[in-house]
Amino acid sequence: MDAAKKLQDGWRPSLPLHEIAKPGKSPLWYVPLEYEGKDTGPEYMTLRIHNSLTREKEIFTPLQGNRVRMYACGVTTYDLCHLGHGRMYVVFDVVHRYLEYRGYEVVFVRNYTDIDDKIITRAREKGEDPLALSARFVEECRADMGALNVLPADIEPKVTTHMDEIIAMVKTLVDNGHAYVSNGDVYYNVRKFPEYGKLSGRHLDDLLAGARVEVSEQKNDPLDFALWKTAKPGEPAWDSPWGKGRPGWHIECSAMSTKYLGGYFDIHGGGIDLQFPHHENEIAQSCAATGAPFVRVWMHNGHVNVNHEKMSKSLGNFFTIRDILKEFTGESIRYFMLTTHYRSPINFHDGAVREAEARVDYCYETLRRLNHRLAGADPLKGQSRFELVFGQNPLDEFCEAMDDDFNTPGGLAALANLLRAVNEALDNKVKTPAWKQMNPDARADLLREALGMLRDMGQVFGLFTHEPNTYLDQRRKTSAARKGIDVNQVEALMNERLEARRNKDWARSDAIREQLAGLGVIVKDGAEGAAWWVE
Amino acid sequence: MDAAKKLQDGWRPSLPLHEIAKPGKSPLWYVPLEYEGKDTGPEYMTLRIHNSLTREKEIFTPLQGNRVRMYACGVTTYDLCHLGHGRMYVVFDVVHRYLEYRGYEVVFVRNYTDIDDKIITRAREKGEDPLALSARFVEECRADMGALNVLPADIEPKVTTHMDEIIAMVKTLVDNGHAYVSNGDVYYNVRKFPEYGKLSGRHLDDLLAGARVEVSEQKNDPLDFALWKTAKPGEPAWDSPWGKGRPGWHIECSAMSTKYLGGYFDIHGGGIDLQFPHHENEIAQSCAATGAPFVRVWMHNGHVNVNHEKMSKSLGNFFTIRDILKEFTGESIRYFMLTTHYRSPINFHDGAVREAEARVDYCYETLRRLNHRLAGADPLKGQSRFELVFGQNPLDEFCEAMDDDFNTPGGLAALANLLRAVNEALDNKVKTPAWKQMNPDARADLLREALGMLRDMGQVFGLFTHEPNTYLDQRRKTSAARKGIDVNQVEALMNERLEARRNKDWARSDAIREQLAGLGVIVKDGAEGAAWWVE
Repeated sequence: MDAAKKLQDGWRPSLPLHEIAKPGKSPLWYVPLEYEGKDTGPEYMTLRIHNSLTREKEIFTPLQGNRVRMYACGVTTYDLCHLGHGRMYVVFDVVHRYLEYRGYEVVFVRNYTDIDDKIITRAREKGEDPLALSARFVEECRADMGALNVLPADIEPKVTTHMDEIIAMVKTLVDNGHAYVSNGDVYYNVRKFPEYGKLSGRHLDDLLAGARVEVSEQKNDPLDFALWKTAKPGEPAWDSPWGKGRPGWHIECSAMSTKYLGGYFDIHGGGIDLQFPHHENEIAQSCAATGAPFVRVWMHNGHVNVNHEKMSKSLGNFFTIRDILKEFTGESIRYFMLTTHYRSPINFHDGAVREAEARVDYCYETLRRLNHRLAGADPLKGQSRFELVFGQNPLDEFCEAMDDDFNTPGGLAALANLLRAVNEALDNKVKTPAWKQMNPDARADLLREALGMLRDMGQVFGLFTHEPNTYLDQRRKTSAARKGIDVNQVEALMNERLEARRNKDWARSDAIREQLAGLGVIVKDGAEGAAWWVE
Repeated sequence: MDAAKKLQDGWRPSLPLHEIAKPGKSPLWYVPLEYEGKDTGPEYMTLRIHNSLTREKEIFTPLQGNRVRMYACGVTTYDLCHLGHGRMYVVFDVVHRYLEYRGYEVVFVRNYTDIDDKIITRAREKGEDPLALSARFVEECRADMGALNVLPADIEPKVTTHMDEIIAMVKTLVDNGHAYVSNGDVYYNVRKFPEYGKLSGRHLDDLLAGARVEVSEQKNDPLDFALWKTAKPGEPAWDSPWGKGRPGWHIECSAMSTKYLGGYFDIHGGGIDLQFPHHENEIAQSCAATGAPFVRVWMHNGHVNVNHEKMSKSLGNFFTIRDILKEFTGESIRYFMLTTHYRSPINFHDGAVREAEARVDYCYETLRRLNHRLAGADPLKGQSRFELVFGQNPLDEFCEAMDDDFNTPGGLAALANLLRAVNEALDNKVKTPAWKQMNPDARADLLREALGMLRDMGQVFGLFTHEPNTYLDQRRKTSAARKGIDVNQVEALMNERLEARRNKDWARSDAIREQLAGLGVIVKDGAEGAAWWVE
C-alpha cells in the first residue's frame, strides 16, 4: 500500500513507531528519541483539537503513550519578526505549555529557515554575507520571542546544519521516482502523488488546470516544486549528487521533522498561510519518502489584521514585534494574542492591546496583594500547617542554605527533610499531637503545602520536570534492561499478582512476590497500588 | 581616575549605569536593557556569595534595584561537551534559577565561542567547514545541556555574530594606548595595566619574570595576549582596520558582556580554570576600554575529578555528557552535581551517580504518591476550600476551555473569575456562609490554593513571570512617561502624603490626593500600602 493510500484511509500503524521508522535503513528513517513510556495516554485527558486534515474537532490521543511529538514551522531569518510571526509562536507555545501542564511529555521541534532566496536577496541589498545575516536574525527572533515569553523548543534545527538529512531525503525521492533532476535542479513530481491537495481541500486536476509555468523553470508540470536548486555564482552552496546548490524551501521541514520525530508524529502546526502550498508539499514529500503517513493532527492559526485590514507594508500598517515592544510590555502583547481563539483572525489595534495591558496590570496587582497577604503580618495570615506538625519549615531551611553562597548540599538536605516528612504523613506515621488532631481537610492542606514546597525546590534545582509515572516507568525499564530482566515477564507476573489479590488469594500473591524476588525484582504495595523495582 | 585605580579602591559608581555607559559615545558603551526598577533590592534578601575578587563571602546587593546582570562563560564549540562543561552550566543555571526564585529580575548572558584555533584545527582534521562544524556543536551543546535541564540564558551571543562589537573594543584599546598592532596582529599591553593579576592573586612583576616568549609571536612582553589575529590562508576571516583576521579568545567576553550588560555588572561566572588568564584578561580589556570597573562579583566553580583523578583524555577517564546520558538520566547527573558545593571539586564515579539516581527515584515516588493522594478518592482528600466558598473551581473551568481546542478566551475568563474571587477574599467582601465561618488559618489556606491556581494558569499562558512589584513599578513609570508626568514629583508627593497619614493629618493627605489627581495620577490605599496609577 503506498503512502497516499494509507493517508486516504486514515491508516494508523499497528507496529510500534521504531518499526515503521526502520532504524538503520536510511538516515531519515529513525527515531532518535526513544519512547519508553506506557502505551496508553493519561485517562483523564479530554482534549479535543481541530484537525485541518479532517476539518473536524477530534479527541486527541497521542500515537504512543503520553509522549506528544510536535513540530511547528519557524521563521525565515531575513528580517525582524512581525506580529504574524509573534502570533504563530505564541499560539504553539501555549499548545506546548498546556500539553505539558496536562502531563504529556512533549517533544517540540521548531525550525529556522536560515538559507533561502529572500535571505540571499536581502544580503545582497545590504552587502552582507547571507549566512551572517541569517545568523543575526536568528538571534533577533530569539530575543523578540523571548520578550513574548515564548519558551525555546526542545530542538531548534536550522537548514544549514541539516544538509545531509535534506540531501538524503531528496535522493530518496529521486531514487523512488517521486522527483526528477532537471539541469542541476531537482523537482518533486506532483502528478505522482494523487492525494496532493488533501490538506487544503483542493483537487490535483483543478490545480493543474489553473497553474502556469514560470518561464525560468524547467519543470514537467506547473505544480512541481523545487527540492534542490542549483547555485548561481556567488550564492552559498552545498555539495550534492546534483552539483553545488541549496534546498528548496519545503523539503527542510520534511527532513528535519522526520529526523527528530520519526516518520509519523502527532501534531504539526503553522500559520494558515502555510497550509498551501507549504504543508501540502511537506505531506507529499514525506509520505513519498518514508511510506509513513507523516502527521496525525494539523493545526493552523489565523491571520493578524491591523485595524481590520490585512497587515502589509504597502498599506503602512505593518508592525514588527520590536516596534510594538516599544509601546507595550511583552506580556500585554501576549495577553492580547490569547484573547482571540487561535483559529480566528485577530484584529490588532492600540485600544485592544491597551485593554490587555490593563488586564495584566490587574493580575499583577492581585498577585502583589496575595503575596503580601500570605507573607506579611496580617490578620488573615495562617501558620504553615507543615510547620505546625513538623516543627520545621523545609523551605526556610532550603533558602537559608542557598543564601549561604548557593549551598546546594544544604538545600538537598532540606529537600530530604521535606520528603521524609511527606512520606510519614502519607503513611500516617506522624507522631505529633498536631497531626493526630487534624481532620482530613487540614491534612490535605498540609500535603498541598508540601507539594508547593517540592515544586519550588524542584524549580530552583531544575529537577522533577517530568510527569512522575512516566519517569518512574522509564527508570524501571532502564534498570531492568541493565540487569537483563525481561520487563514483559515482570509486568505479566505483576498483573497475575494483582488478579490473585483481587481474589484474596494471598498464597498465590506471596508466591509471585517470591518468584519476582528470584528475578531480582522487589514489589512494593501501597495505597497507590503496587509498584516494582529492580534490586 | 583610571579604571585600575577604581578597581583597586573598590569604587562603586554614584552615577546611574547609563551615565557610566556613555550612550552614543561608542557602540560598546551602552546599556540596551534599560533598568526601570527601584534602587534598593528586596529587603528580605540575605544572600551571601563568595567573591573570587575579594576572596570573601559578601552580602549580595545588586548594583541597581532588584535587577541582576549576570554573565557566564560558555563553551568553545569544537566537540561534544564533557562533564566539566556540564558542571559549569548546571552551577550557573542554579544560580540563575535561585536568583529568580528570590524575586530578582535576572538578565543572564552566556556566550558560545564559535570561532577559535581549536575549531579551525578540528575542522581541518575532519575536512569540514569550520563555521559549519561549530554551528553543529552549538546545537549538540544545547541538546546536552537541555538533557541536564539547564535553562537557556536570556541572551546567548556568538563570536561570529558580534564582530562589530569586538572590533570596536579592540580599536578603542589601540586608540587609547592599551594595545598595539604588530604585523596585522593586535596585542594587549599588559604592562600598561598595573592591576593585572588582581583576580587570581598574582603579581605582574612575578608573572613577567616567569614568562617566556613563544618564538612565533611578535609581542613586546611575554604576558601580552592577542586581541586580533591575522588570518592564515584558508581560515575564516573578517575585515578589520588591521586587515583580515579573527579575534583572540579573551576579547569576545569583554565585548559581548559590555554590549548586553553595560560596563559594570553584577556577576561573572565560570570554571576555576578560566580564572587565569581568561578572566584576568577580561578585566584588563574591559576596564581599559570602558573606564568602568567591569564586574562586581566573580564566581568560580571547582573541577570535576573522576575516581579522584583529574579527568583527561590521556588517563582514559574522560567522559562526555553524551556518554554519561547513555547510563543515567539527566536529572540523576544533575542531582549528583548538586551534592557538592559548587566551589569544591566534585568527584565523579558510578557509585555516586547511582546514589543520586536512587534519590531522584525517591523524589519522584514521593511526588507520585502525593499527586495520587491529593487527586484520588482517598480518606485524606480534602475538598478544595476555594470551591467550598465560591462554588466553582476556576482551574476546572480553565482546563475545560483549554481542552476544547485550546480555547484561550475561555481560559482567560476562568482567570478573570479567579481574580475577582481572590480580590473579594482579600477585601473580605465574600458573602457566602462558608467564608464567614472560616478562621484565619483556613482563609490563608484558601488564598494559598488560589495562588497555586494563578501560578498554574500563568505557567500555561506564559504570563506573570515577573516579580509583581517590579512589573507594577515599571508600568507606573512607563505610563507616567507616556503622559509626560514627572515620576519624581509623584513619588515625592506620595511620600509626603504617607508622612501626613502617619501624623493623622487627613486634611493634608486629602489635599495631596487632589493635587495628584490634578496631575492625572490616581492614588489607591490598601492594607498593602498606598499605590499610584496614571489615569
